[in-house]
Amino acid sequence: MKNYSDLWLGYKKKTHNRDCKNLNKISFTGVDETDAVAVNASEELKTGLKTMLDIEPEIVFGTPGVTGTVSNGSEILDNEEYRISLSDEGIVVEAKSGTGILYGAFDILRTVAVEKDVIEAYGKGIVVRPSNPLRMLNHWDNMNGDIERGYSGESFFFADNKIVINERTRDYARLISSVGINAVVINNVNVKDAASYMITDRYYDKLAELGEIFAGYGIRLFLSLNYASTIEIGGLDSADPLDEKVIAWWRTKMAEVFDRIPTLGGFLVKADSEGRPGPFTYGRTQADGANMLADIVKEYGGIIVWRCFVYNCKQDWRDRKTDRARAGYDNFMPMDGEYHDNVILQIKNGPMDFQIREPVSPLIGGLKKTNQMLEVQIAQEYTGHQIDVCYLIPMFKEILGFKTYCSEKDDSVADIISGKTLNSRYSGIAAVTNTGNDYNWTGNYLAGANLYGFGRLAFDTELTSEQIAEEFVRMTISDDDDVVRDVMSILLPSRAIYEKYTCPLGIGWMVQPATHYGCSVDGYEYDRWGTYHRADHLGIGVDRTDKGTGYALQYNEPNASMYNSPEKCPDELVLFFHHLPYTHRLHSGKTVIQHIYDTHFEGYEEAKGLAGKWDALKGRIDDEIYENVRERFERQLINAHEWCDQVNSYFYRKSGIPDEKSRTIW
Amino acid sequence: MKNYSDLWLGYKKKTHNRDCKNLNKISFTGVDETDAVAVNASEELKTGLKTMLDIEPEIVFGTPGVTGTVSNGSEILDNEEYRISLSDEGIVVEAKSGTGILYGAFDILRTVAVEKDVIEAYGKGIVVRPSNPLRMLNHWDNMNGDIERGYSGESFFFADNKIVINERTRDYARLISSVGINAVVINNVNVKDAASYMITDRYYDKLAELGEIFAGYGIRLFLSLNYASTIEIGGLDSADPLDEKVIAWWRTKMAEVFDRIPTLGGFLVKADSEGRPGPFTYGRTQADGANMLADIVKEYGGIIVWRCFVYNCKQDWRDRKTDRARAGYDNFMPMDGEYHDNVILQIKNGPMDFQIREPVSPLIGGLKKTNQMLEVQIAQEYTGHQIDVCYLIPMFKEILGFKTYCSEKDDSVADIISGKTLNSRYSGIAAVTNTGNDYNWTGNYLAGANLYGFGRLAFDTELTSEQIAEEFVRMTISDDDDVVRDVMSILLPSRAIYEKYTCPLGIGWMVQPATHYGCSVDGYEYDRWGTYHRADHLGIGVDRTDKGTGYALQYNEPNASMYNSPEKCPDELVLFFHHLPYTHRLHSGKTVIQHIYDTHFEGYEEAKGLAGKWDALKGRIDDEIYENVRERFERQLINAHEWCDQVNSYFYRKSGIPDEKSRTIW
Repeated sequence: MKNYSDLWLGYKKKTHNRDCKNLNKISFTGVDETDAVAVNASEELKTGLKTMLDIEPEIVFGTPGVTGTVSNGSEILDNEEYRISLSDEGIVVEAKSGTGILYGAFDILRTVAVEKDVIEAYGKGIVVRPSNPLRMLNHWDNMNGDIERGYSGESFFFADNKIVINERTRDYARLISSVGINAVVINNVNVKDAASYMITDRYYDKLAELGEIFAGYGIRLFLSLNYASTIEIGGLDSADPLDEKVIAWWRTKMAEVFDRIPTLGGFLVKADSEGRPGPFTYGRTQADGANMLADIVKEYGGIIVWRCFVYNCKQDWRDRKTDRARAGYDNFMPMDGEYHDNVILQIKNGPMDFQIREPVSPLIGGLKKTNQMLEVQIAQEYTGHQIDVCYLIPMFKEILGFKTYCSEKDDSVADIISGKTLNSRYSGIAAVTNTGNDYNWTGNYLAGANLYGFGRLAFDTELTSEQIAEEFVRMTISDDDDVVRDVMSILLPSRAIYEKYTCPLGIGWMVQPATHYGCSVDGYEYDRWGTYHRADHLGIGVDRTDKGTGYALQYNEPNASMYNSPEKCPDELVLFFHHLPYTHRLHSGKTVIQHIYDTHFEGYEEAKGLAGKWDALKGRIDDEIYENVRERFERQLINAHEWCDQVNSYFYRKSGIPDEKSRTIW
Repeated sequence: MKNYSDLWLGYKKKTHNRDCKNLNKISFTGVDETDAVAVNASEELKTGLKTMLDIEPEIVFGTPGVTGTVSNGSEILDNEEYRISLSDEGIVVEAKSGTGILYGAFDILRTVAVEKDVIEAYGKGIVVRPSNPLRMLNHWDNMNGDIERGYSGESFFFADNKIVINERTRDYARLISSVGINAVVINNVNVKDAASYMITDRYYDKLAELGEIFAGYGIRLFLSLNYASTIEIGGLDSADPLDEKVIAWWRTKMAEVFDRIPTLGGFLVKADSEGRPGPFTYGRTQADGANMLADIVKEYGGIIVWRCFVYNCKQDWRDRKTDRARAGYDNFMPMDGEYHDNVILQIKNGPMDFQIREPVSPLIGGLKKTNQMLEVQIAQEYTGHQIDVCYLIPMFKEILGFKTYCSEKDDSVADIISGKTLNSRYSGIAAVTNTGNDYNWTGNYLAGANLYGFGRLAFDTELTSEQIAEEFVRMTISDDDDVVRDVMSILLPSRAIYEKYTCPLGIGWMVQPATHYGCSVDGYEYDRWGTYHRADHLGIGVDRTDKGTGYALQYNEPNASMYNSPEKCPDELVLFFHHLPYTHRLHSGKTVIQHIYDTHFEGYEEAKGLAGKWDALKGRIDDEIYENVRERFERQLINAHEWCDQVNSYFYRKSGIPDEKSRTIW
C-alpha cells in the first residue's frame, strides 16, 4: 500500500471512449526509444488507458512518414510544444522533444479521464504551446523535514538533513509534469543550516539522482542558494559580489556543482530580505549580486532567479513615510536594463506579501528591460492554512488579466510573464507550493485544486477557473455531474468568501502574528513589519496617494490616477490606497463601516453555506475525501466565526457606529 | 573557575569587625558534632570569617554550661529558631536543631558582611523565629533542561532527562538556606514526559542524594506530582481519587517513594488546570483529590501542597458572565473545612495570574478552616522577564499587609500564612523562582534582589523593602554608601515604574500572548483565557461588581463594599473592578484617559531615569555586573518606549480624546 494518494493520476474506470479505435495505436513522431521522457510518456499512456478503458495501445516511436492531418497547420517551434491529430489507424503525437510528447500524452489521458470524446478533441488536430517558458514550483522545505508555511505534513524531499528519494519522488514528478510544471526548487528560499551545504559533496550524488528523475519528466531541478555561501561554507570573510576572491570562489564552486549535478537548471536567491544576507551589505546593488552569479552559471546553461522581496522589516510603526508596498519598486526599478540576460526577477503578485487581496505589484509592467517571473503562493499562508477552503485560481486569473499599461498592446501581466511583451526568453510563473507528505499531498483535499490549477494555468493562461475546477473534480473526486456541479459551487466562490471575512476593502494583515492563521486586528499594527491599517475612532486605511506615501504613483497611467483617487479606486482596494472615514460612501453605496459589518456577517454565513454543501456530499463521494474536508470545514467555521465577531467588535468598539441592521456585535 | 557567581555568599574583605574578639570563639549550644547541619554551619562560619576578617574562629559544639545572657529571655520553642548572645569569651548560638544553628551562623555572617557591629547586634542577645513555617521555592524546571518562564538560562537540576548533582547543587542549598528557605520543589508543576517518572526507580537514587544535600542545609525536598500518575505510569485506566484501585496504587507507590527518598517532604500538585488532569474529570472535588493523597503520605510525615490555580481556560470572549477572577474562590471555598490537616492550599497572590497589579485573592481570608500558603512569582513572567528591573519586595509587602477582615485581629495575609490566624501548623509562602544556570543565577543581576529578598521576607515578614534592598546591595555589589544609595534608588521605585508603563488602574494582560513580554493591548482581548479589558470608544474596565460578575462580593466586608463602589475603590484597582468612561474622574483628580497618558509618559521617563542612574555607576562597581545590567536597561528602555507609545496610541485612537498636555501620541 502506498501511503499517498494518486490525486488526478488515480486513473479510474471510464466509459465514454471505450470503443475509440484510435486509442489502439499511438504514434510518437519526432522522438525515438532512446528518449527517456518519451518512454515515460509511453508508460503513462499504457497504464492510464489500460486502467481507464482496458485498452492496451501500441506505442510507435518516431515512425517516419506517419503524420496526422492538422487543420491548424502551425509549425512546432518549441521543445515543449505538441501537436495531436488522428491518423487512419490511431493517434499521432508530434513534438520536437520527449517533453512535448509527454505533455501530449497527458493531454490524451486527461481527455479520457474527464470523459471528453477523443475524436471530437483531436479530429481537427490541435497544436498546444505552453503560455509561459518557466512554470515553476518553489518548495519551502527545510532539510530537517519541516516545511516553512507547510500545512500538509513534513517534506517528502528531506528528512534528518538527508535527501530522500523513493517511489513518491517519481510519482511527484509524474503528478506535476502532468499539469505542465517544468521547474522545481526543492529547498526553502531561507537557506540555512544543512541546506547551505547542498552545494557540497555531501549532497551531490543524491541531487544528481533527483535531477535525473525530474529530467525524465521534463522538469529541471533548481536549488535555493545561500547568498553568503562564500562566508558560511567557503571560509572567506566576504560575500561582496565585486570582490575578486568572492567571484573566484563562486567560479570554482559552480564548475563543480554543474559537473556533479548535470541536470541542474540554476538557482533561486533570496538576498537582503528578512535577515538573509545580500549585496546591500557591501553597498552593492541587487543587480551586482544577481549578475555576478548569472555570469558564472551562464556557461552551464544556468539561470539565476532573484527574488524581489526586499524591504525594511524593522520599520517603526510610528513612521508613516516609509511604505513597505513601495519597497520592491524602489529597490529594483533603478537597475532596469542592467540585469543580465540569464537573470530573472521573481516578483510576488502584490507589493506586500500574499494577502488575499492586494493590487498587482507595480514592478510588473514597471520593469521594461528585465526578465520577469510572477510569484504566487498556493501554500495557504495567509489564505486559510489549507483548513479553510480557498480556491485561488480566480485570484490568479485576475492578476494575470491585470492591464499594466506598460505598452500599447500585450500589456497584461500574462503577456509580460509569457515573454511576449518584452520578447524575453526567460520568464514565467512560480508558485510557493502547498505540498507535504500528507496522504493527500495538500492537507485539505480541496487544496489539491490549487496545485492542479496552478500547473494548468501556468501552462495555459487562457483556461478559465471553471474549466480548471471541473477538470480537477472530475479527475479526483467524481464524474457524477451533480457532484461536479456541487463541488465546483464550493470551490469557485471560496476565495471571495475568505476575503469577505478576513480582508475588507483591501485591508489585510489583521491576522495572528507568526502563525498567520486566525484574527488579530491589531496583531501587526504596532509591530516592525510595515503592515498597518491605521484605524482610529474616525477612520481606517493607509494613505498611499501622492499626499501620503506616493505608492500609487508607481503605477503606469491610467492606473496611477485610478488608485490615487478615492473616487476612482475600486472598492476592494480602497483602504489599501486611502485612509477614509468610516462614514465614507463606497461605489456600492454602503459606508465603509457598514461594508465591514456586512461582509463579515455574510462571509461567515456563506462559509456555513459551503460547509452545508459539502455535508450534502456524504455518501456520494469517497468517504476518506468526504471526512477529510468535513473536518476542515468544522475548523473553518470556527475560524470564520471568530473573524466575523472579532473584526465587527473591534470596529464597533472603535468607531461607536452601530450596525444599520442591528445584528449582534459583541 | 566556577561558572557561577557566589552572589551574597561571595565573602569579600571587610573592616569593621576586624578587631572583635568575640568572633574568635563561637559556641553552638543544643547540638553536637553529629549534626550535619551544624557542621555545615561551622564550615560556613570558618570560611566566611576567614575571608572577610581573616579570623579563624574556634567553633565549640554543644558545650554544656556555656549560655549567653539574653535580655529578651523568651524560650526557644521551634527547631528553626535561634538565639545569639555574647559570652565573656565569644559568641553563643543556641537552638534546638542544627537548622536553628545554621540560621544563627548566617545571621552572624550577614552582620559582618554588611559591616554592622557585632557587639551592637548581639550585645543584648536576640531571639529569632521565622515568620512562616514553610518558606518554599517552586522551580518550573523541566527534565530536558528547559525552564518554563525561565529567563536566566537552563535548569541546574536537570539536563537530558537526568538529574544533575554537582558543586552548584550544594552551593544552591547554601545560598537559599542562608536566606531561610526551607523547602524546594525542584520540578515544574506541569508534570509531563520524563518528570512523570520521577517517582520511579529511574530517579530514586539521585533524588535521595539530592534530598540529603538539601537536608544538610535544613531544606526539605518536594516534588511536583502528576495527578494522573495512575494512568500515565501506573497502567490503570483511572485517576478517580475515590476509586479503590487508584488508592491502592498510590498506597504502594508512596511507601516505595518515601522508602527510597527518606528526606522527601511531600508533593506539590497542579490538578484540573490548563490542561492538567485532576479530580474534576471524575466528578470529584479538589478536596477529594488532595485528601486522598494526603492521607496516604501522612504516615511518612509528608504533606500535599495543592494549587488553587483552577479556572476555565477555554472561555468565550463574548461571554461577560464567566469571570476568571472568581474561579479560585468558586472552586475551593465550598470545601472549606474538608481539607485534611496535612493538605495546604497554595493560593496565588491575586485572583488572575501574577500581574504587576491585582487585588489580593479573596480566597486568602475567605478560607477559615483550611491550611493556606501564599504563592508569589519572582520569575518575572509578566513583570519584565528579568530584562526590565522590577524589585518585587514592595509588592509582596503590600500583599502581606493586606487586611482581609477574616477575624477580629491578626487578619492580615501575613498573619494568615504565618499560621497565627487559624492556628495552623502547615502554612507559609512559596515563590515561583527566577533561577537558572546563568553565571549570575537570575539573568539580570538586580533580579537577584528578588531571590534574596523573597527568602528574607519569608523568614521575617517585618523586614522593610529598604532593609532588604540595602542588605542585598551591600552583600553583592558594594559597601560604598553612595553606591548603596544609588542602587537602592533604582530598586525601590522599579515596581511602581513597571506598573506605570504596563498596567494602568489595575488593567493587566495588555501583553504579547505566549511570551508575556512586550505590549499588545488587544493580545488577550479576543482570546480564550478570561483576560479582557473590554475597552470601547467610551470606556474601559471589567465590571466585577454586584451588577457585573459579582467578584467584588467574594471579599469580607468592608473590602467587598469598598471594591464594589467606583467611588471607594482605590485608583490603582479601579478598572479591575469597574467599567468606567474615559472621562471618569479618579481620586487623583485626573480622568481615566489622562491617567493612562500621564502614567505611560512618566513610566518611560522614569525608566530612563533608572538607566541613567545605573550608567553613573560605571567604574564604581564590578565591570561584569555593570555591563550585565546596562545591557538589560538598554532593552528595558526599548520595551518601555513601546509600551508607552502603543498604549497611548491605542487609547487615543479608540477614545479620540487628546492628551491635555499635547504630547506626541502616534
